[in-house]
Amino acid sequence: MAHYKLAFLGFGNVGRALAELLLRKRVELAERYDITFSVTGIATARHGTVVQPAGVNLAAAIELLQTKRSLNLITKSLIANSFDFIYKCGADVLFENTPVNHQTGQPAVDHVRAALELGMHVCTANKGVVVHAYRELSELARSKGRKFLFESTVMDGAPIFSLFRETLPAARLLAFRGVLNSTTNIILTRMESGESFNQAVQYCQEIGIAETDPSADVDGWDAAIKVAALITVLMDTPFTPQQVERAGIRGISPQMIAAAKAEGERYKLVCSAEREGETIRARVAPERVPISSPLYAVEGSTSIVEFKTDVLGDLSIVETNPGPHTTAYGLLADFINAVRER
Amino acid sequence: MAHYKLAFLGFGNVGRALAELLLRKRVELAERYDITFSVTGIATARHGTVVQPAGVNLAAAIELLQTKRSLNLITKSLIANSFDFIYKCGADVLFENTPVNHQTGQPAVDHVRAALELGMHVCTANKGVVVHAYRELSELARSKGRKFLFESTVMDGAPIFSLFRETLPAARLLAFRGVLNSTTNIILTRMESGESFNQAVQYCQEIGIAETDPSADVDGWDAAIKVAALITVLMDTPFTPQQVERAGIRGISPQMIAAAKAEGERYKLVCSAEREGETIRARVAPERVPISSPLYAVEGSTSIVEFKTDVLGDLSIVETNPGPHTTAYGLLADFINAVRER
Repeated sequence: MAHYKLAFLGFGNVGRALAELLLRKRVELAERYDITFSVTGIATARHGTVVQPAGVNLAAAIELLQTKRSLNLITKSLIANSFDFIYKCGADVLFENTPVNHQTGQPAVDHVRAALELGMHVCTANKGVVVHAYRELSELARSKGRKFLFESTVMDGAPIFSLFRETLPAARLLAFRGVLNSTTNIILTRMESGESFNQAVQYCQEIGIAETDPSADVDGWDAAIKVAALITVLMDTPFTPQQVERAGIRGISPQMIAAAKAEGERYKLVCSAEREGETIRARVAPERVPISSPLYAVEGSTSIVEFKTDVLGDLSIVETNPGPHTTAYGLLADFINAVRER
Repeated sequence: MAHYKLAFLGFGNVGRALAELLLRKRVELAERYDITFSVTGIATARHGTVVQPAGVNLAAAIELLQTKRSLNLITKSLIANSFDFIYKCGADVLFENTPVNHQTGQPAVDHVRAALELGMHVCTANKGVVVHAYRELSELARSKGRKFLFESTVMDGAPIFSLFRETLPAARLLAFRGVLNSTTNIILTRMESGESFNQAVQYCQEIGIAETDPSADVDGWDAAIKVAALITVLMDTPFTPQQVERAGIRGISPQMIAAAKAEGERYKLVCSAEREGETIRARVAPERVPISSPLYAVEGSTSIVEFKTDVLGDLSIVETNPGPHTTAYGLLADFINAVRER
């Protein structure tokens, strides 16, 4: 039996869902994987920070935050900032879940680097880190004999990065194509039922999946950063979101949607990339897809990616009903994969 | 760099495709996985057997068999039978690819057992072995510190077993549903274009995917054995094909197909299983599926399986264009996963 001390840097919806999942899977982790754990630190942005080497009562911490009280009620921890937290949390595994910074990946990149330098494994759902520092952080992790894993950055907890890393050894990814942004997919689906673009955006804001400023989704930036992450890791080629040819869905009118529908087609914000000789061409753009395409049936928050490799026919992964709990599962899977004996 | 001696027991289309793939991926295996290999034995049913501790010339062996000559032309090997081959091949890894025996799994089960006892890893595409002896052979492999892997037994080389083993740790499979037999799917697709059942069967025989006696496919036995394999391994519950409720497609008339089509639906031979309390209920039967189902668009030899777990939304895997080369890739992936350092 191996014991691991865990720390949470960032403890929003995903962090709390992960904490609940860890509690639910505690017995299974011990019985199937010989893994036990304690939580030695939790840092939140607005509800305090706690560090307890003997182990935080995780259920009590979740309860405090659900009622919007501060973790400082558990114990008074003298923690100056996020880096001080990393140095003092004493963890074996850091879950880095601070907000995504699409432009620079900071400060998450520095958080991950600091934790790896200290000999921790790091699991993150933060796309910015992958796009801005995948190669450097992976090499640092390797040199330290630790793991830097990030399954939840694309398609939530559905296995994408681990699919290639673990189940498709020696496969070469030639191209991929998919629907990777749920907000735009919900907007397009609702416009098919007659809503205007603005009404559909407002709906997404009401159910909490679109921001007050929806431009990251509707202009294709979220999709482009996911495409860049897939290329960077799975094609082993550093690629920025700016390198992705990008068109959002603001130009898609109700008339265009109706015209497509009349011909048995639907608009989807399609993400794609392919090798062209030594270069890679990547694109995010609205496309009309016919009923024969696997992308046609992808509704609402469902996402899909089709992979073309040199060893199989097309292989598609489809995930329905994502949410904080599925992102949390990706982080749990990363943790187990980082430490388990095989 | 670690060197592995490989042996092929059975060298039909899949074995030869694997040999070609190994030659094509030789440099990549060395560079990315620190793996080198030689082939110390190949046993065929009708074209001789060769054992060479110093290494068989694989390209020469493939060429001999393509021109229907005997491996005995390489060297005179005194091998009495398949078990004698296993004892004398001196391999670290055995690829067991003898024909499937749906009733008992033999003699493949005994082949795998003998190889594991001798300390070999075993990779097989033989479903009979999984359904009839998964638990015993897995425990034997574990006790010997070796691997018994069989990715290619369901959906060819698409990752299904490794998906759960490697990328979905601590996930509990609650139910699955899919289209897993290509012959019946091609028959149903062709009947939609107006062919009779017999014409469609004949077409499948002409392109070499249906046997002279097509009953294993059309009566649902092939699908049932795959369902039993998935339950046995992924739900960790021994399950026989006979326990699967089974109806084939002989009862589906052109009139039924046309009636479904008129209402925007299609017949598919649907495989499904779900936990019901402590028991598992499994079924293979033709069903009408609506256009909103991911199964609707699965045409020709494409296959799909949707997994319902306790940690993600539905997760579907779709594989298009299977063939001996994709089955071969599943065996290569098994080999790499059996021996690689992580």
